[in-house]
Amino acid sequence: MKIVEQVLSIRSLRRCQMIDITGQIADVIAKSGIQNGLATLYCPHTTAAVTINENADPDVPHDILLVLEKLVPQHLAGYQHGEGNSDAHIKSSIIGCSRQIFVRDGELVLGTWQGIFFCEFDGPRSRTLHIQISGE
Amino acid sequence: MKIVEQVLSIRSLRRCQMIDITGQIADVIAKSGIQNGLATLYCPHTTAAVTINENADPDVPHDILLVLEKLVPQHLAGYQHGEGNSDAHIKSSIIGCSRQIFVRDGELVLGTWQGIFFCEFDGPRSRTLHIQISGE
Amino acid sequence: MKIVEQVLSIRSLRRCQMIDITGQIADVIAKSGIQNGLATLYCPHTTAAVTINENADPDVPHDILLVLEKLVPQHLAGYQHGEGNSDAHIKSSIIGCSRQIFVRDGELVLGTWQGIFFCEFDGPRSRTLHIQISGE
Repeated sequence: MKIVEQVLSIRSLRRCQMIDITGQIADVIAKSGIQNGLATLYCPHTTAAVTINENADPDVPHDILLVLEKLVPQHLAGYQHGEGNSDAHIKSSIIGCSRQIFVRDGELVLGTWQGIFFCEFDGPRSRTLHIQISGE
Repeated sequence: MKIVEQVLSIRSLRRCQMIDITGQIADVIAKSGIQNGLATLYCPHTTAAVTINENADPDVPHDILLVLEKLVPQHLAGYQHGEGNSDAHIKSSIIGCSRQIFVRDGELVLGTWQGIFFCEFDGPRSRTLHIQISGE
Repeated sequence: MKIVEQVLSIRSLRRCQMIDITGQIADVIAKSGIQNGLATLYCPHTTAAVTINENADPDVPHDILLVLEKLVPQHLAGYQHGEGNSDAHIKSSIIGCSRQIFVRDGELVLGTWQGIFFCEFDGPRSRTLHIQISGE
């Protein structure tokens, strides 16, 4: 059993943005030399998240961000956190900061339409995503 | 350390449906021969998800789908994705496509009331769920 | 590869509460003797969850609970589950019952502002959280 870790650097350009990082994750897995196992993605930020969804049509990430904004408005009577980004923290916990993907024959096992997105909810910022691949 | 993978076939019968797959997952674990470790469940679809919740009372999955439908309506001014299933993509990212369960003494470690559900948000369809069990 | 499991006991004091368990998780990891690998957290309850978010400012958990309560009200026409806690089940599936954290040099790898929270949605109760650490 081998464990390989890597940290990706990500630059978001807007306050809310879903950034397709599928290719970067695939590169990390290819370089790890691990053929079969599990890749765990971990977002170390409290106002961002990681998700897997359709990356063929950019309207899908648009619609995800649209509904999240509707459900969790940036300004709401009752927010107590003073930094003005309570919505970003809440979206982070709704989407989640960790995800797993299988690795088989040295490649990511994704469904036909699936891509991996870093979800920025309080950008623009410099961000990181941690990846741990374990297997043989 | 041993790694066993299996793909379950699932047939949904309605547009939105939570399908109890606890028994099928338990069978896969029993057949894997792995006594202690971790089972990772992965949904390879962008309009479905996997969750763990109460499976004793069928009213619980009913109420989960009711609120998801209320929060993420099928039709909404502003959706740009042309396939009419933006809601299903959004629900998929809210619930999530991967989950972990412990394996101990060759069995799933679930809480008293917990069952595993495949969440269909754009059925009826033929679907799959990937399972990877690692351990000894 | 070594696998260590532990069960934390948690006592919630209110119906909805986010309880910071970062220190308890760090202790379990230190005692496991595992230097590098993965910690999987698993909540065996169907009306609770586990999340990672900011634990420096207690207003952040306050605002997360505020919006969850707004999105998923305790009482709603249409709920069929007879126990009056449908909202707690729904919140559990939205936040999720499993999470992963990296372990490096015998310590949790958390972002600067991240802490680990047990999310109680139907307390006050005695609860547990399962931890499995795998690595070397």
